[in-house]
Amino acid sequence: MKRGFGSDNHSGVSPEVLQAIADANSEHALAYGDDEYCARTAQLFKQTFGQQASVYFVFNGTGANVLNIDAMCRSHNAVVCADTAHINVDECGAPQRIVGCKLLTVATPDGKLTPELVRTQLHGFGFEHHSQPRAISITQSTELGTLYTIEEIRALADLAHSYDMYLHIDGARLANAAVALGCTFKEMTTDAGVDCLSFGGTKNGLLMGESAVILNPALDVELKYRRKQMGQLCSKMRFVAVQFETYLRETPGEKPLWRRNAEHSNRMAQLLLNELKTSLPQVKVMYPVQVNSVFADLPRPVWTALQQECFFYDWSESGIDPKSGAPTDVVRWMCSFDTTEEDIHLFVNALKRHLV
Amino acid sequence: MKRGFGSDNHSGVSPEVLQAIADANSEHALAYGDDEYCARTAQLFKQTFGQQASVYFVFNGTGANVLNIDAMCRSHNAVVCADTAHINVDECGAPQRIVGCKLLTVATPDGKLTPELVRTQLHGFGFEHHSQPRAISITQSTELGTLYTIEEIRALADLAHSYDMYLHIDGARLANAAVALGCTFKEMTTDAGVDCLSFGGTKNGLLMGESAVILNPALDVELKYRRKQMGQLCSKMRFVAVQFETYLRETPGEKPLWRRNAEHSNRMAQLLLNELKTSLPQVKVMYPVQVNSVFADLPRPVWTALQQECFFYDWSESGIDPKSGAPTDVVRWMCSFDTTEEDIHLFVNALKRHLV
Amino acid sequence: MKRGFGSDNHSGVSPEVLQAIADANSEHALAYGDDEYCARTAQLFKQTFGQQASVYFVFNGTGANVLNIDAMCRSHNAVVCADTAHINVDECGAPQRIVGCKLLTVATPDGKLTPELVRTQLHGFGFEHHSQPRAISITQSTELGTLYTIEEIRALADLAHSYDMYLHIDGARLANAAVALGCTFKEMTTDAGVDCLSFGGTKNGLLMGESAVILNPALDVELKYRRKQMGQLCSKMRFVAVQFETYLRETPGEKPLWRRNAEHSNRMAQLLLNELKTSLPQVKVMYPVQVNSVFADLPRPVWTALQQECFFYDWSESGIDPKSGAPTDVVRWMCSFDTTEEDIHLFVNALKRHLV
Amino acid sequence: MKRGFGSDNHSGVSPEVLQAIADANSEHALAYGDDEYCARTAQLFKQTFGQQASVYFVFNGTGANVLNIDAMCRSHNAVVCADTAHINVDECGAPQRIVGCKLLTVATPDGKLTPELVRTQLHGFGFEHHSQPRAISITQSTELGTLYTIEEIRALADLAHSYDMYLHIDGARLANAAVALGCTFKEMTTDAGVDCLSFGGTKNGLLMGESAVILNPALDVELKYRRKQMGQLCSKMRFVAVQFETYLRETPGEKPLWRRNAEHSNRMAQLLLNELKTSLPQVKVMYPVQVNSVFADLPRPVWTALQQECFFYDWSESGIDPKSGAPTDVVRWMCSFDTTEEDIHLFVNALKRHLV
Repeated sequence: MKRGFGSDNHSGVSPEVLQAIADANSEHALAYGDDEYCARTAQLFKQTFGQQASVYFVFNGTGANVLNIDAMCRSHNAVVCADTAHINVDECGAPQRIVGCKLLTVATPDGKLTPELVRTQLHGFGFEHHSQPRAISITQSTELGTLYTIEEIRALADLAHSYDMYLHIDGARLANAAVALGCTFKEMTTDAGVDCLSFGGTKNGLLMGESAVILNPALDVELKYRRKQMGQLCSKMRFVAVQFETYLRETPGEKPLWRRNAEHSNRMAQLLLNELKTSLPQVKVMYPVQVNSVFADLPRPVWTALQQECFFYDWSESGIDPKSGAPTDVVRWMCSFDTTEEDIHLFVNALKRHLV
Repeated sequence: MKRGFGSDNHSGVSPEVLQAIADANSEHALAYGDDEYCARTAQLFKQTFGQQASVYFVFNGTGANVLNIDAMCRSHNAVVCADTAHINVDECGAPQRIVGCKLLTVATPDGKLTPELVRTQLHGFGFEHHSQPRAISITQSTELGTLYTIEEIRALADLAHSYDMYLHIDGARLANAAVALGCTFKEMTTDAGVDCLSFGGTKNGLLMGESAVILNPALDVELKYRRKQMGQLCSKMRFVAVQFETYLRETPGEKPLWRRNAEHSNRMAQLLLNELKTSLPQVKVMYPVQVNSVFADLPRPVWTALQQECFFYDWSESGIDPKSGAPTDVVRWMCSFDTTEEDIHLFVNALKRHLV
Repeated sequence: MKRGFGSDNHSGVSPEVLQAIADANSEHALAYGDDEYCARTAQLFKQTFGQQASVYFVFNGTGANVLNIDAMCRSHNAVVCADTAHINVDECGAPQRIVGCKLLTVATPDGKLTPELVRTQLHGFGFEHHSQPRAISITQSTELGTLYTIEEIRALADLAHSYDMYLHIDGARLANAAVALGCTFKEMTTDAGVDCLSFGGTKNGLLMGESAVILNPALDVELKYRRKQMGQLCSKMRFVAVQFETYLRETPGEKPLWRRNAEHSNRMAQLLLNELKTSLPQVKVMYPVQVNSVFADLPRPVWTALQQECFFYDWSESGIDPKSGAPTDVVRWMCSFDTTEEDIHLFVNALKRHLV
Repeated sequence: MKRGFGSDNHSGVSPEVLQAIADANSEHALAYGDDEYCARTAQLFKQTFGQQASVYFVFNGTGANVLNIDAMCRSHNAVVCADTAHINVDECGAPQRIVGCKLLTVATPDGKLTPELVRTQLHGFGFEHHSQPRAISITQSTELGTLYTIEEIRALADLAHSYDMYLHIDGARLANAAVALGCTFKEMTTDAGVDCLSFGGTKNGLLMGESAVILNPALDVELKYRRKQMGQLCSKMRFVAVQFETYLRETPGEKPLWRRNAEHSNRMAQLLLNELKTSLPQVKVMYPVQVNSVFADLPRPVWTALQQECFFYDWSESGIDPKSGAPTDVVRWMCSFDTTEEDIHLFVNALKRHLV
């Protein structure tokens, strides 16, 4: 398959990452994280997120999200999230099975929770028949390609803390968000009051590297046992650590890999947006294009024809708008660290052909 | 506490039920259901629901619902239900913890699912990221005091079966529904295609008697082990069995206990409704009054004052209408098998005092 | 079925208990424990076990055990128990499913743990591959009818606490133990350092009454939600409370019900033991007879013939001694609060007939 | 850290495996297994294990074991295994938490189950208080470096099937076993009646590659959803698939990678054994050395001194022999695909120094 716009995990691995894995492939290292590579990378996470941060490498985003939820909640608790949240729609019920807790979902116009929306679920405290809200979970950038500002994150953290709750970020695409906001990871998380974070790298050029980062030390209790029990403890962990080391390392005179990759994919989405605006104004773009994805509403026959040439996903899910009952025809075009300008031009040209 | 309108489980026990318990209190009986009382009552369930029906006595409604869900689903499955369903809002996340599955909730105007509403959740089949819908669960009569007709139940059963799914009824108040519809339990369940049923008695005069009734034999697989594992196996089970025997037994020339009790509580709700219509038309009744409850929207200061005299519940939950964002002030008045006409008159008179 | 020696839950209900239920059957009471009966009985538990004790009524022993384990452990923890413990062999894996934790079992000669035996499982602390021991669970009196002295309990509590662990007692037959030891409930539990207790009444004359009693307030955290989530919250709870009130209440000049019933069943077991010793010395009694059961090893053809006349259980389980590989033929004869001297004499006479 | 004898997952990655990953790093591929690499490798598994075999790639051995257990069992079931089994002692209770089932453990002299040992746990069928045995799980080669013959595997499979149970193999080191037995994977699994298999590669030269292989199609029911729900679905799965392709591929005139690596590590263990026998007969070797590990009993001061020079694990666990109560001082020396003859000689020389 040639490059398409299906997902940023359809792309491969940044060459620097493969090189780092090869470089670490010498002699023996203790398994399960007790090695120098992991120690070094854990320090790098502290430099990145603050000294109180502790990192738990895991295998995938579901593992990171569920470990974080398990840190915040017991089974009688509930997590407030957008109904579009990955933990709600894309993990086949992992939080329910693994943690046994409930998700309290809120419909949103753009994938973003607000204090006002969250408050609709903040009731029933002390009532034993009701799953007790204990966490708010947001995705940054969201599943719809939108962004929380730092102030918006802080407002949700403040709301959470005022109810003795926690704020979690699903940061599978946190790099794209940091680039778009022009801030550091720390400013967007630790400094904004976030308690724990799923910090992903796979969608931005790693081979396989995800992590749960505990920012609030009160949550860092016996998690290593539960990571193991959940099946998320990697044996040859050095090979995960060096991926993140390569990803996060700051070298004088050079942007770190995470930034280079995310800047590129964000830029490609803007290029796609501009091309659409310029030459195909009839394509309705659904949400603000803030990171590396473009959602568009266009006739189903058009995009099913286009899919024959280039892969991307139907994002209309049920095919029925839950509010209006009308059929929806939304598609998602996702740019990746290896998307080229030529990919964009070819794609827009193909779309033109199908639209006329 | 005098009689109030808080809940039909605030009332006590029908005298016939206590007598049956006393009568069974002689000599020894095998524990855990291997006794003649349980055998006899299991036969009575077959007479009531059809010969293929098998009954599992449990302790409470949560136990019945969760055992039924466990019969229909594995952890990767989902149950479609109304967002007002007891399994969603009043069991502190029991299905999530015990079965590990997901609930897919639908907003409804009146607590009732329709095929159209259910269909908004029937997507993602075969897609491994999505909890696979396997059951529809409805409550009869609903948590809002409304009723499904037999035809409506059959339509949902047909929909379920066409997707290789099952239909479950939470029948904590099935007796009230049967009385209101003028039908038998069997016509409303087995004959309508229902696969399994939580059949309750506690809210209609039993001391403590709930059951999971499996109507579709394909679901009756190794449930006795899981009832035990869930902590729902009663040791001196004869004392549960005789309650249901007293409840269901048909005696020539006499209505069975379930019917007498449910007819009475339904009639009291109609009396309350009529009194309101006649003498307090300014009280806005929220839903059709079809069984033994009346929901009313009236000013909070009025009903908080009234609560000082007679207990009932605030049903406005979050206090905020999720759609309009406006504050809501709904209360629930629930009649019971022991509610008297005098209770109704005194209550309406008190309400009059507070409303003027 | 006439009275047999199958189990103390084959017997019925003490008349005083049924009377108390009938007496409480008047007017309405708030459901789920918010009533004066429950408040009064909770106070009685404080008088019985100490002011720091809090009681959670549940439906059965499995419910009490699992709620207590859930109070002590998270899923990555382990409970050390005898391999004969009820939680290990008679709950169909409830702790595993509901709490998700592990049981670390120890073979014992007589159903009793000792510090030395427990220590064989106290390793692997800090090693994330190993379920972390967090609780010791003992049964008093044990499943084999043996007893811990108060000093033995204290030694296990001290051991537990020295490892930052907790001590739980499964006290389904705690009354029989208290009678046999001539001590109060408090001396055997709270004063001995026990952290939490499953306190049962059903096997000693209640209709249906079990409870989790939290003696160490540090464990009393959000348990009401998890009781509900586990399906162990009773709606008409007043009828459970009054059973325990009747059971525990101290009346001047009269022994409380728990003591009368337990004294009787213990005495019946001693009578049976004496009859055996006197007239059937060839019957090998297996363990010290300290409470209300007698375990005997006698030829299988003898006892299978005897079972035709009087019910009791084969206690040889697998029929194979795990150590020697030899077939075992152990039976359990359990006396109850309603066992009569005549029952014993008739039984021993029958046994004589089959043995000669 | 230089090469030691700690574990075969302390070693790195076979160069061929890294090359295959690099080769697959071109263009896009569908995520989550819907790519040509995965399709090709799935075919290779069918060639290896038989056409009815289906493979589920997962992240680690715990993931493979738990997915297989979930395929065989529901929560009320039990798995019979050796008390030394990885699923029992090294997964922090993953089967209990994720599947909710029970493990029934058996003490063994050498890590191997026999039909006779398994039968001690095959009782209580139909008794709802008892977790129902549904699976036998063995490890090939075992955690103690011993081997089942094909006939022994078949005998356990026959036993399992005669009880309507399944046989699972934890094959984290199946390659070492196949080399030692001189048989194919298929002869040792499918042909011997094995129902499902955890087939590992990480301990034998892969970067990160484990799999659940379903050999009995009756077990292959909706597992893809549960793999996802357990957090074991890899996004860029092509990079796992090509590892296994490299591992299993048969090339004319060349041994496949799995065989080369396993032959080597087995040979190194034999070399170590021979050196010990020849020059250090006082070192007591604990079990038959059949694959790539040597267990030795030697004085603790000796091996703690030796550990300063070369890493390996204390295998005495609790430090106390559970049977005799005597302290144990067992160590495990594990050879790897990259262990050299020089490593062995240097190690034995160092041991000599410490022993004299």
